[in-house]
Amino acid sequence: MNHAELRRELHTLHLELPKNALVAWTSGNVSARVSVDGMGDHMLIKPSGVTFEDLLPESMVLTDMNAQVLEGDLSPSSDTATHAYIYRHLPEVGGIVHTHSPYATAWAANAREIPCFLTAMADEFGGPIPCGNFALIGGEQIGAEVVRVLRGHRSPAIILQNHGVFTIGKTPRAALKAAVMAEDVARTAFLAMQLGTPVPIAQADIDSLYDRYTNVYGQQQATSTGEAP
Amino acid sequence: MNHAELRRELHTLHLELPKNALVAWTSGNVSARVSVDGMGDHMLIKPSGVTFEDLLPESMVLTDMNAQVLEGDLSPSSDTATHAYIYRHLPEVGGIVHTHSPYATAWAANAREIPCFLTAMADEFGGPIPCGNFALIGGEQIGAEVVRVLRGHRSPAIILQNHGVFTIGKTPRAALKAAVMAEDVARTAFLAMQLGTPVPIAQADIDSLYDRYTNVYGQQQATSTGEAP
Amino acid sequence: MNHAELRRELHTLHLELPKNALVAWTSGNVSARVSVDGMGDHMLIKPSGVTFEDLLPESMVLTDMNAQVLEGDLSPSSDTATHAYIYRHLPEVGGIVHTHSPYATAWAANAREIPCFLTAMADEFGGPIPCGNFALIGGEQIGAEVVRVLRGHRSPAIILQNHGVFTIGKTPRAALKAAVMAEDVARTAFLAMQLGTPVPIAQADIDSLYDRYTNVYGQQQATSTGEAP
Amino acid sequence: MNHAELRRELHTLHLELPKNALVAWTSGNVSARVSVDGMGDHMLIKPSGVTFEDLLPESMVLTDMNAQVLEGDLSPSSDTATHAYIYRHLPEVGGIVHTHSPYATAWAANAREIPCFLTAMADEFGGPIPCGNFALIGGEQIGAEVVRVLRGHRSPAIILQNHGVFTIGKTPRAALKAAVMAEDVARTAFLAMQLGTPVPIAQADIDSLYDRYTNVYGQQQATSTGEAP
Repeated sequence: MNHAELRRELHTLHLELPKNALVAWTSGNVSARVSVDGMGDHMLIKPSGVTFEDLLPESMVLTDMNAQVLEGDLSPSSDTATHAYIYRHLPEVGGIVHTHSPYATAWAANAREIPCFLTAMADEFGGPIPCGNFALIGGEQIGAEVVRVLRGHRSPAIILQNHGVFTIGKTPRAALKAAVMAEDVARTAFLAMQLGTPVPIAQADIDSLYDRYTNVYGQQQATSTGEAP
Repeated sequence: MNHAELRRELHTLHLELPKNALVAWTSGNVSARVSVDGMGDHMLIKPSGVTFEDLLPESMVLTDMNAQVLEGDLSPSSDTATHAYIYRHLPEVGGIVHTHSPYATAWAANAREIPCFLTAMADEFGGPIPCGNFALIGGEQIGAEVVRVLRGHRSPAIILQNHGVFTIGKTPRAALKAAVMAEDVARTAFLAMQLGTPVPIAQADIDSLYDRYTNVYGQQQATSTGEAP
Repeated sequence: MNHAELRRELHTLHLELPKNALVAWTSGNVSARVSVDGMGDHMLIKPSGVTFEDLLPESMVLTDMNAQVLEGDLSPSSDTATHAYIYRHLPEVGGIVHTHSPYATAWAANAREIPCFLTAMADEFGGPIPCGNFALIGGEQIGAEVVRVLRGHRSPAIILQNHGVFTIGKTPRAALKAAVMAEDVARTAFLAMQLGTPVPIAQADIDSLYDRYTNVYGQQQATSTGEAP
Repeated sequence: MNHAELRRELHTLHLELPKNALVAWTSGNVSARVSVDGMGDHMLIKPSGVTFEDLLPESMVLTDMNAQVLEGDLSPSSDTATHAYIYRHLPEVGGIVHTHSPYATAWAANAREIPCFLTAMADEFGGPIPCGNFALIGGEQIGAEVVRVLRGHRSPAIILQNHGVFTIGKTPRAALKAAVMAEDVARTAFLAMQLGTPVPIAQADIDSLYDRYTNVYGQQQATSTGEAP
């Protein structure tokens, strides 16, 4: 995608956040890594405190990978430093989503990983969704915690204690898909816990499901990019 | 319905899945048995990994009853082998729906059948919704488990341990209705359990309700086809 | 309202059922008492097994007060005998709504009245929403149970064990309002129970709230008719 | 904003109440302080018992700060005396929202403050959302309880025992944002409690989050006015 296409894609993906009930008011944001010829990588991200309805493709703020604004009249999301840290340390990541989606955040308030009772969770996350430690917002603490936990991990999603969810992907769309699925499995796992003691899935079965899903499911490269061809 | 009408009907029914909150992202699928003159039965099914918004009538993939693609540029759902197995072994089935709808799947994560506390459930399912054993995705294990449990059973719905829901019907619309109602009763039964110990319905009353609903309710043949004339 | 206006009003009110998440698929119905000059009272009611999307004003079935069809090509709701019984025995009732709305029905599955922890519930229902005994569908058992409990009761809503909700009103709109509010308070009371032991409201305060709401709230006669002038 | 703009803004904000699932039927209302040259302050507020769909900018009722109608054919909300009391005693308040949103009200039914387990709650409310004592509707009891608790409190939201939520803000939009966020955190805190014992956030971290959010987040003055520039 070129720069203009990426702005439109980010706009579309932001509208998926309220549509999938992942956000309230202005909370939640999506960013994309932007490669600019000869200038290294930059980032496009949601402006701070703007409602999803009021967003436009041109509202997205362009920053460098130290969260400094390069283009745009609005202040970038207050989570920009976190996104920048993740892009700097995980070069394979092309998109990041952050939400406080309610079921996933309820697990995070208990500092508990989301356990893997569901084949759909084995498919998408390869096991539990890990929970990172408490970290304050604004600086690089959160980014560092995300990178520490997700580097080399199967799961493209992390929940952060008392806070919410970060998901990563090769594209912003893949990260969004992970955010939608994280809330979906967080909810079903929550409901399952209220009914009793859910049956665990054997590790060998989790491995087998994850392998099949990663290598077979979808149209060609669909899974890795999150795009439905 | 002819082939073109069936494609439009499948398209319409797929849109009912997100509308009734039964699916997240690309999960969930509907298929229809297609009888082709002199060629035996075929199946139309959702392509794999395509979002519901992006589906078109012409996106549906035509396969034979061994899940081999006959027509269509996209790969069929990764659940195609399961659908094919069910069609081969239950000749009265004309449509199949698969979802991971959250409340039904929460019961499935506990490997518990959904108990019958509700007259609407006695009507539609004739008693509890049974829970099948764990089976891996991709081959015929799931199909075999669905057929083993649902053959001769009153319920057109089954939940599968750690996985989700399959429903069957004379038509795809009837199977969709069963999927909508399965999630509805799974939710109310869940809520009822949180409040205390729900009162069971006497077996004779369940039998009476099921008999009345199957033979009297709706317009003429409406119940058996799931169509509202 | 004349006959044609009443058909349009019933159509509008049926669309409020899915909009307020009170129904799944074809479950749920609204009826209106129709006074015909020199012919006694009749009833307009939803046809059986028709989806809400497919309803039209002219789909409503006209029956007499013994549930016999007078006008219309479709079979009336399988709950018609219940509605007829209520109209015959409660002459002040001009409209009736029936749903299986999930939270109210969860209380009904436990054969528990919905307790009055909320000022909005004291306003609207004057105390708890009572729970009637189990009764089979089809004949007059349900109607008799509704009339036995609601005659002279403050509450315009009743839940029926293992079944669902019936609400009555001077108009169909007033009955619909009661159905919407019944589910709303059933949900909040459910949530309150999950958090601990809700604080009861003193009977004198319930009486005072109910008196004020019934006599002061809304525009002139708004409460008694359920219409917003 | 001039008077006409304020009516349009109030109309828009009222539509946000059902859109954010904060209300059922006609419950819930928004008001705005109106400064009239040389005449002191007045208030615009929702008319009583009117559905949100039927509201128009010109439906809003103008009253003085003793809840006496100055302009408008409809009766003002039955909560008008409460709003008036708050405006008289908290001169910095420019807008007030009242709802019975279900999760917040479930906490209120237990007479429990909503505890602060979430960084988003520390941001927005600076700690727990306090719970006021029971007070009867209609007179000034509720207004007095709101003012007693919120004067000098960080939280722009209060829940009232057995009743619901009041939020205040410099503008009606800021009060609405607080009402949306109050329900959001009430829900996540509820869910977190069902999973076990949520981890508290250290007071120093709450203070730090609240300070950053109040002084840094959003575009310029966005937080204090609730407007997204």
